[in-house]
Amino acid sequence: MSESLCTSSGKSGLPPGSLIHVGEVLEPVGSISIVDYSKGKFEEKKLQSIDEIIQYKDSDTVTWVIIEGLTNVEIVERIGAIFGIHQLVLEDILNTNQRPKFEEYDDHLYIVLKCLLPGGENFTVNNEQISLLVLKNFLIMFKEKKDEVFHPIRQRIKTSSGKFVSLGSDYLAYAILDFIIDQNFILLDLLDESITSLEDSLFEGEPTQDMLYKIQRLKREMISIRRYVSPVRELLAEMIRSESDLIHENTHIFLKDVSDHSIRVVESIESYRDILTGLLDIYVSSVSNKMNQIMKVLTVFTSIFIPLTFIAGIYGMNFEYMPELKWKWAYPLTWAVFIIIPLVLLAFFKRKKWL
Amino acid sequence: MSESLCTSSGKSGLPPGSLIHVGEVLEPVGSISIVDYSKGKFEEKKLQSIDEIIQYKDSDTVTWVIIEGLTNVEIVERIGAIFGIHQLVLEDILNTNQRPKFEEYDDHLYIVLKCLLPGGENFTVNNEQISLLVLKNFLIMFKEKKDEVFHPIRQRIKTSSGKFVSLGSDYLAYAILDFIIDQNFILLDLLDESITSLEDSLFEGEPTQDMLYKIQRLKREMISIRRYVSPVRELLAEMIRSESDLIHENTHIFLKDVSDHSIRVVESIESYRDILTGLLDIYVSSVSNKMNQIMKVLTVFTSIFIPLTFIAGIYGMNFEYMPELKWKWAYPLTWAVFIIIPLVLLAFFKRKKWL
Amino acid sequence: MSESLCTSSGKSGLPPGSLIHVGEVLEPVGSISIVDYSKGKFEEKKLQSIDEIIQYKDSDTVTWVIIEGLTNVEIVERIGAIFGIHQLVLEDILNTNQRPKFEEYDDHLYIVLKCLLPGGENFTVNNEQISLLVLKNFLIMFKEKKDEVFHPIRQRIKTSSGKFVSLGSDYLAYAILDFIIDQNFILLDLLDESITSLEDSLFEGEPTQDMLYKIQRLKREMISIRRYVSPVRELLAEMIRSESDLIHENTHIFLKDVSDHSIRVVESIESYRDILTGLLDIYVSSVSNKMNQIMKVLTVFTSIFIPLTFIAGIYGMNFEYMPELKWKWAYPLTWAVFIIIPLVLLAFFKRKKWL
Amino acid sequence: MSESLCTSSGKSGLPPGSLIHVGEVLEPVGSISIVDYSKGKFEEKKLQSIDEIIQYKDSDTVTWVIIEGLTNVEIVERIGAIFGIHQLVLEDILNTNQRPKFEEYDDHLYIVLKCLLPGGENFTVNNEQISLLVLKNFLIMFKEKKDEVFHPIRQRIKTSSGKFVSLGSDYLAYAILDFIIDQNFILLDLLDESITSLEDSLFEGEPTQDMLYKIQRLKREMISIRRYVSPVRELLAEMIRSESDLIHENTHIFLKDVSDHSIRVVESIESYRDILTGLLDIYVSSVSNKMNQIMKVLTVFTSIFIPLTFIAGIYGMNFEYMPELKWKWAYPLTWAVFIIIPLVLLAFFKRKKWL
Amino acid sequence: MSESLCTSSGKSGLPPGSLIHVGEVLEPVGSISIVDYSKGKFEEKKLQSIDEIIQYKDSDTVTWVIIEGLTNVEIVERIGAIFGIHQLVLEDILNTNQRPKFEEYDDHLYIVLKCLLPGGENFTVNNEQISLLVLKNFLIMFKEKKDEVFHPIRQRIKTSSGKFVSLGSDYLAYAILDFIIDQNFILLDLLDESITSLEDSLFEGEPTQDMLYKIQRLKREMISIRRYVSPVRELLAEMIRSESDLIHENTHIFLKDVSDHSIRVVESIESYRDILTGLLDIYVSSVSNKMNQIMKVLTVFTSIFIPLTFIAGIYGMNFEYMPELKWKWAYPLTWAVFIIIPLVLLAFFKRKKWL
Repeated sequence: MSESLCTSSGKSGLPPGSLIHVGEVLEPVGSISIVDYSKGKFEEKKLQSIDEIIQYKDSDTVTWVIIEGLTNVEIVERIGAIFGIHQLVLEDILNTNQRPKFEEYDDHLYIVLKCLLPGGENFTVNNEQISLLVLKNFLIMFKEKKDEVFHPIRQRIKTSSGKFVSLGSDYLAYAILDFIIDQNFILLDLLDESITSLEDSLFEGEPTQDMLYKIQRLKREMISIRRYVSPVRELLAEMIRSESDLIHENTHIFLKDVSDHSIRVVESIESYRDILTGLLDIYVSSVSNKMNQIMKVLTVFTSIFIPLTFIAGIYGMNFEYMPELKWKWAYPLTWAVFIIIPLVLLAFFKRKKWL
Repeated sequence: MSESLCTSSGKSGLPPGSLIHVGEVLEPVGSISIVDYSKGKFEEKKLQSIDEIIQYKDSDTVTWVIIEGLTNVEIVERIGAIFGIHQLVLEDILNTNQRPKFEEYDDHLYIVLKCLLPGGENFTVNNEQISLLVLKNFLIMFKEKKDEVFHPIRQRIKTSSGKFVSLGSDYLAYAILDFIIDQNFILLDLLDESITSLEDSLFEGEPTQDMLYKIQRLKREMISIRRYVSPVRELLAEMIRSESDLIHENTHIFLKDVSDHSIRVVESIESYRDILTGLLDIYVSSVSNKMNQIMKVLTVFTSIFIPLTFIAGIYGMNFEYMPELKWKWAYPLTWAVFIIIPLVLLAFFKRKKWL
Repeated sequence: MSESLCTSSGKSGLPPGSLIHVGEVLEPVGSISIVDYSKGKFEEKKLQSIDEIIQYKDSDTVTWVIIEGLTNVEIVERIGAIFGIHQLVLEDILNTNQRPKFEEYDDHLYIVLKCLLPGGENFTVNNEQISLLVLKNFLIMFKEKKDEVFHPIRQRIKTSSGKFVSLGSDYLAYAILDFIIDQNFILLDLLDESITSLEDSLFEGEPTQDMLYKIQRLKREMISIRRYVSPVRELLAEMIRSESDLIHENTHIFLKDVSDHSIRVVESIESYRDILTGLLDIYVSSVSNKMNQIMKVLTVFTSIFIPLTFIAGIYGMNFEYMPELKWKWAYPLTWAVFIIIPLVLLAFFKRKKWL
Repeated sequence: MSESLCTSSGKSGLPPGSLIHVGEVLEPVGSISIVDYSKGKFEEKKLQSIDEIIQYKDSDTVTWVIIEGLTNVEIVERIGAIFGIHQLVLEDILNTNQRPKFEEYDDHLYIVLKCLLPGGENFTVNNEQISLLVLKNFLIMFKEKKDEVFHPIRQRIKTSSGKFVSLGSDYLAYAILDFIIDQNFILLDLLDESITSLEDSLFEGEPTQDMLYKIQRLKREMISIRRYVSPVRELLAEMIRSESDLIHENTHIFLKDVSDHSIRVVESIESYRDILTGLLDIYVSSVSNKMNQIMKVLTVFTSIFIPLTFIAGIYGMNFEYMPELKWKWAYPLTWAVFIIIPLVLLAFFKRKKWL
Repeated sequence: MSESLCTSSGKSGLPPGSLIHVGEVLEPVGSISIVDYSKGKFEEKKLQSIDEIIQYKDSDTVTWVIIEGLTNVEIVERIGAIFGIHQLVLEDILNTNQRPKFEEYDDHLYIVLKCLLPGGENFTVNNEQISLLVLKNFLIMFKEKKDEVFHPIRQRIKTSSGKFVSLGSDYLAYAILDFIIDQNFILLDLLDESITSLEDSLFEGEPTQDMLYKIQRLKREMISIRRYVSPVRELLAEMIRSESDLIHENTHIFLKDVSDHSIRVVESIESYRDILTGLLDIYVSSVSNKMNQIMKVLTVFTSIFIPLTFIAGIYGMNFEYMPELKWKWAYPLTWAVFIIIPLVLLAFFKRKKWL
């Protein structure tokens, strides 16, 4: 999530309704594949042309079309033509800066949200926008990247013999949403780890500028995650409230379950935010604490040696009439003073608990 | 509550609907016991097989089934089959990372929440997920651990002759909820103690790194507690609003009473949060205060002795023509200066209130 | 309010419905007194036994029963029996850790709230739980302590010839609520005084550890007050919404007036909270400011004398070939340097505005 | 607004319903004046006795009665008697610690709010409570002080030939509310000025204790202003919702306009609050920044001269066998060291960007 | 946005209903131009007199009137007369301190909001108030400045052959709103850049007073932006809810799309606020961190050389009986001490990780 939090729609001034891909290009060429299944049937294949999906349009089987890469605008345009999708929806599919939302149309539903996956070594987050068009026995999914993220779902369809294959495209949509939201828990576990390791190194070692940098970076990541996840609750609530025929009665309970998960995710994020804010306070306190210790060392050193140096200075003066200079025991006596003063001061600092 | 705040559902990718235990295993083997009671009857026994409960299914007595340990998935599966429980509910029972919630079905209610108990020596909190299935004259409770936490309720049923035994499974559910929420007060009392002791040691002694650590730990604990307790208000509100036949009219007043308690718990937590936040501010202020004192000591010492050392240095110079060196009263006069300068400076610092 | 913010209900495990006094015992023996009045009639007396009130039960006069001290559980039990009060209400009366609330029953209303009175010398707050049972022409008040707090109301009844004595028990309840809430304004005035005096001493004098302690204590007190007062708004809103016959139409406008007062109290508390939070920030800033001044003194002293001492040190060296040592004007010249360097540095510090 | 934020109602214990003036006395003697107008008629005069207004009671003209000073309780009492005003409203008029509110009665409306005017030299705010009784063709205004604040409105009535004089008392009430709320913008402009000047002096000069004091004072003022203005939104919303005959259909759009203004005021206050909070943070940061600079000066001075002094000290030692003392170039070499060491250190500090 | 956050309505005391321009004058002379279009027709011209628009009033084409500069009050007055606009709307058009809002009248809609454009070199924002009067086939736009901001829309109308020209004035209003809101994304991208560059220079270099100034300035800008943008959500929600005939059914989906954008803008602003607040905390922590480093240097230098200077001072004393002075190896031994002490101290500081 190195990208900025907000990205201009990039088409200001363009007529709303002109289809162009807006957003970072993550996949130069698009690919189309389908999964077609029903009780006892499972077919998986790559399509060369988008027009091949027409044959599945009126079949009884559930067809899951997966389009990876959004630069090929014609695919989206063609789908719009085949299924009669509103121009604005097509635009939203192509613009990868969408806020998660659910839209209900007469004969299709549009769902868009972000799939968040852990990135590289440090705590970085990759996000990919997933658009779902839910039609009767048909689900078209638009992804930015070509990868195997949703492989486990395909696997489940393949191996399932019961519920999954006997339920419609709404259950498939649920399964995808459930999968995407469950990914967040993995992220949050990583976040937890990062925070805990920061906390530990803060309490054990020195507070460094680097930690500060990490705290700020985690904060930014969390702010992004929240912005992507927080509207999902709403999205799901609207789906549950929806009276569309495309969502069957018995899918509601499943959606309610995902909704519970999304609430848990958001509540966790809020908790981590609190903890992270606390961590910065702890950091500042730690720095102050260290400063105190440094100051104590300085003060103890200075306070002990400065008076002694002064005394040595006195008897380094060259006045002619300094009777002490001639006393036999003057020098040992001076040493006695050199020993007593530090002891007194050390006792004083001890009582002040500076040592 | 050493666990992380959020834990991945652990089954991402698994078909929703596959029953496996998700969460830390707290009890390797499961055990089943029942308490069967009605006016004038009280029976308590351990069951060998879950199928033994079928005989109680249609009796007039209230039957409380207690299942301890969730690793034995077959028990949960069997109960699902016997009583016709939805697959998702069974999954939720087995997944111990649930957000407290209340779900209403045609012939049963599902309640899940966390029972929080004080842990070891410091302020640590152990949590256990309690799931309740409320059916007509039947209450099935799922616990993660095998312990005697709910012994007092069993005792009350045994000794009660009036209300308890004459009311149904909803009153039993109420009694359990009431018990679980009242445990929180004990926790909060311990929390109060911890905070007060921190506060005292902060105002009396030195601010140490260790206190910082304790404050952060208490904060984290409180964030967890709030996450477990806060949704309970909602849960109870939904129960009160529920129009299920399983909750009798005269149980409502009891539920309202528990609801009041849960609100009090949440309000207390919020108050403690405020106090804890304040404590960190106080900590930072304390550290700054100490620093001021250290700096004052340093400044007073340095400011007094540095000029004196300089004067001693002057008359330690070896110029040939330094007339003062030969004056008879030079040395005593220098001493006079050595005494007057500190006195003046001390007076100055006194007026500045640094001493 | 030295007590903790939350106190365990203390009966966890006990059957809900067992009547025992929960909370600090403020009054060892209970006492019962009544005020019976109607237009032209005023009777005030102490009762020996609670059963004496039965004779007033069906009279046309308004009867105000005052029960002071809650340890004598039988009194409460007997009243429950005489007037048919729900067991849970009786429990709530005896448990002095209640959240302010209003409950409506068929033939009686139950109101519980805290009466806050300023305590001793510093800003401390004493609270007492007041429970009111409002019946037709009957008001039973339960207090924890035996004192004369409500004397002014008794006086008003005695001297009133008009409205008070011609209205029912709901007006009496209103008068009591109004009185209790108006006590809060006295508290808030004291709070204002405490804060202002803290503010003044902060801007004038030195920031001390003691102030920090006072700020934290005030904060805690305010958190408690808010917890006791905040739910009163709700309580009154529910009373106003209530359609019980026990609250006459023309009492509503009076209740709305008290409700306005309670809103004012809560808003004041919020404002003071903001001010107190600001005060802590000011404190921290003040401490930093002082530190700056201390550092300036140290820096000025050190920066001036350290170079001088170094110069004196140079001519205190014992090299054989140090031609300056023999120059006639060397010593006066050195003195010139001793005077010029500080002047230059002082000018420099002056320009930096450190002096 | 040097007064405290909350002021005791001052009559705790007094029967609600006893009319006495509560609040600071701003005007010792009261005065009554009226403005009577209709299309083509404008009369303005001072009344000696409140009873003179009776003659205007049933006229068709709109009569605006202005009562300045609230100590003369009989005036309020008499108005209550003449127009049948509820006892509690009369009390509220006399108590100048009211929260802004709108109350609707059968044949009159009661509006109370604060008129905020800039005070003296610094940013101080004077507030005056304005009570309005709106009756059919009659508006009675109660002010605390005798001044010419509302002169502009009188002028507008006098010079208006169209809308104003042809509309009723509700339009007059609107004009007064509009006027009072627009005063707040003047205040906010002053506040803006104060904050900007503080900000400037903070970024340019030194952070002083005095600025801290000003920030805190502005904060307090803003808290007061918000408390007085914030409920006005509600007041206006209730007026707009009101179905009273006294507010004509075509006055609604005007009230909506004032309501917009009041929202703008409150939003501005919130923005300034944010800015002021930010200012304190900036202050603290500035102080820390300065401290850094002071410390740098101290460190640079000390680090340079302390090693030199040590070296000078070495050759001030009186050991018999110190060969360097006899070397011819020893002294010039020492001087070379005295010059090289500072140069090296200065280069080091330069690289650290401390100079 | 150098202007203050709130600006007095500037007409306090003036009769509401007197038309004068309130606000900064950005354009001394006004100009009127129109764009008249329908399917296959496009006309663009400058008008000399406002009365020329009457001829377009009842045509079937959509007419977009653009009035630039608000000082020519007669134009606004005349439009009010021609189209029967309410006096208060005309006032709002002329007062450029409006809060964004939507008002619905019988035969026209009034929309006012701010168009925010990036200003000069640094992150500065220019705002211009845009008022829209939407009538049947007619849209009158009032701008403060004469510029080409809306040129792209004109272009789109010119080149469009399909939807745009076949839809009414409500679609034109939508296109304008969409355009204005999309401008905000450009602003937010600039804001993001500014924040990131600040963040980078904070983590890499020194925290300077100048950064503090920039942070505060960004904060103020963001507070202004939020105040201008935040009410737009509401405005759009009201437009969508509106049942006016002037907004066609099929425009709703477009408005919903803009509404989504405006929500995204506000959420981004909130996120940036969080980040900016975090930045200030980071700043303070950085300053403290630097201070720690400075203190370490000071402490290390002082602690090493002060004891050495003291030792040198001892043997600079002039006592007659100082046996060490005569020892042959005294001087080399002293040097050994001069070397060992620093090494020991350096090891100590190394272990403390100060070096």
